[in-house]
Amino acid sequence: MLASSAPDAGRVLDPAIAALLKRDDAGLVAAIIQQHDTGEVLMLGWMDEEALRRTLTSGRVTFWSRSRGEYWRKGDTSGHGQYVRSVALDCDGDALLVRVDQVGGACHTGDRTCFDARPLAAVEGVWPAESVEGANPGEGVAHV
Amino acid sequence: MLASSAPDAGRVLDPAIAALLKRDDAGLVAAIIQQHDTGEVLMLGWMDEEALRRTLTSGRVTFWSRSRGEYWRKGDTSGHGQYVRSVALDCDGDALLVRVDQVGGACHTGDRTCFDARPLAAVEGVWPAESVEGANPGEGVAHV
Repeated sequence: MLASSAPDAGRVLDPAIAALLKRDDAGLVAAIIQQHDTGEVLMLGWMDEEALRRTLTSGRVTFWSRSRGEYWRKGDTSGHGQYVRSVALDCDGDALLVRVDQVGGACHTGDRTCFDARPLAAVEGVWPAESVEGANPGEGVAHV
Repeated sequence: MLASSAPDAGRVLDPAIAALLKRDDAGLVAAIIQQHDTGEVLMLGWMDEEALRRTLTSGRVTFWSRSRGEYWRKGDTSGHGQYVRSVALDCDGDALLVRVDQVGGACHTGDRTCFDARPLAAVEGVWPAESVEGANPGEGVAHV
């Protein structure tokens, strides 16, 4: 288990990446974790620069745990590790998409995903037939 | 186009759902938007209670736009609407998974997803062979 919560001596996140991040008031960005082959969205966690650096360089996902105030390499306690396949930053810098191979369940409840237990009742929407002609990519203005 | 930014008179989010939400300092929860059939993660947006109420009841996704300080029904300007298929809340209440049918591209850049343009270099991780026996769901403690 990775016991140290301090950054590896002398290692910091690539400043070119750090400059792109739009952090919240706690210095964090959102990290969406997705199973690389099935597409299941497993969970959403939070990362500061150091958690992101570890995720990019170690092959394993590390989050910042807001509840415990420490770094948390996913799976160190449970065995349910997340092995990194790819990481991408979104267009405005406040969210990461981390595609992984998840061992077992992602959720502390034992569920495969953190979204399994609480579906909400939602009205379904369908493309109106008459909108198909107007639905061409590229139409519209910058803020869509 | 839905012009009003005020809630429909007398309508509020189901209090039972509102009570489950863990909002940030701005009163928002994260909303992961995923294409329902292909599994593509399209974008991450932000919702307050009213945006969530509209998303649950209208068949279309509505976000709270932090940059413009107003409600934003995705697609009203671009034609690239998101038609709701399902909504789920995560285990700790700070994130929603909204599965949709996305018309065209989700990103203001024209890309299909907001994660297409900025991949980050990441070391890939693989399950160690010797860990398979220990990787059984259920082993471990509450905070995994």
